[in-house]
Amino acid sequence: MTIQRIKPGSRFASAVCHQGVVYVAGQVASDPKEDAAGQTRQVLATIDRLLADAGTDKTRILQATVYLADMVDYAAMNSVWDAWVVQDKLPARATVEAKLAAPQYKVEIVVIAAQSD
Amino acid sequence: MTIQRIKPGSRFASAVCHQGVVYVAGQVASDPKEDAAGQTRQVLATIDRLLADAGTDKTRILQATVYLADMVDYAAMNSVWDAWVVQDKLPARATVEAKLAAPQYKVEIVVIAAQSD
Amino acid sequence: MTIQRIKPGSRFASAVCHQGVVYVAGQVASDPKEDAAGQTRQVLATIDRLLADAGTDKTRILQATVYLADMVDYAAMNSVWDAWVVQDKLPARATVEAKLAAPQYKVEIVVIAAQSD
Repeated sequence: MTIQRIKPGSRFASAVCHQGVVYVAGQVASDPKEDAAGQTRQVLATIDRLLADAGTDKTRILQATVYLADMVDYAAMNSVWDAWVVQDKLPARATVEAKLAAPQYKVEIVVIAAQSD
Repeated sequence: MTIQRIKPGSRFASAVCHQGVVYVAGQVASDPKEDAAGQTRQVLATIDRLLADAGTDKTRILQATVYLADMVDYAAMNSVWDAWVVQDKLPARATVEAKLAAPQYKVEIVVIAAQSD
Repeated sequence: MTIQRIKPGSRFASAVCHQGVVYVAGQVASDPKEDAAGQTRQVLATIDRLLADAGTDKTRILQATVYLADMVDYAAMNSVWDAWVVQDKLPARATVEAKLAAPQYKVEIVVIAAQSD
């Protein structure tokens, strides 16, 4: 079996690994009462945990897609992102505005990462 | 040639295979007069056919991105999704709201799948 | 090191290569005063340059995601896209409406490409 699933739920898995690449499901804040910066912090912490479960970390992210419910939160999201990423290990990224599964969610992030350098 | 294209049109291919991974183009309903559940059923049936053309199936989807024209259809889409996915073979997934190429389309789904386990 | 970054900035890299696949960051127009067709032309020219930096080209794109700030520009974007793609080398594609990082941007395109046939 070359396909491995991490934290499968009833609807989707939190991450799926295949041929050295891990596809992480879109992550939102577990406590959406926080503001955009706080929600981004929660989302990135969850991504850190899922990447660790896949035997890798944020220095090996290949592609990130950031969905913001309102682009007004672009600077707030970036302030947390900038402090989180490792400067010589940056991923490709796209950021677009999209409403999320529930109105309290301000940010959702999807990443694809390598499992080794 | 390690890149294989499935059902190429004039603008894009329905799917492209490379190194054991198949990238399926965003699929919408062929009959958009149906409601969100019906359109989701059509989209997933098309994805089933394209995955079969690529020698694989829904048990090997790595990542799914679901675009809903209106998040009000989240439950309707999920009811069809939940009946379609295989419980111990779940993909990673993200669902966001985005208007689609024409107003009659309520759901578009993109998947990346492995061609073997 | 199997992960190579192209034009890393302070926030993300313009492209990241891994195991023969290049993930290009979301590209927008450098001169957003142009209309949707002009912006699409700029975006695709930037993608051409980044793919060249990664040792590949548009004939090896596996997946493209096109974000339009307003779907009214679908035909204008497609007119430029259709002239750019190579007819027997088409990628999979999805196009959805999403507001972008700043209101002057009309189109953003993300691609994943193979580095060799």
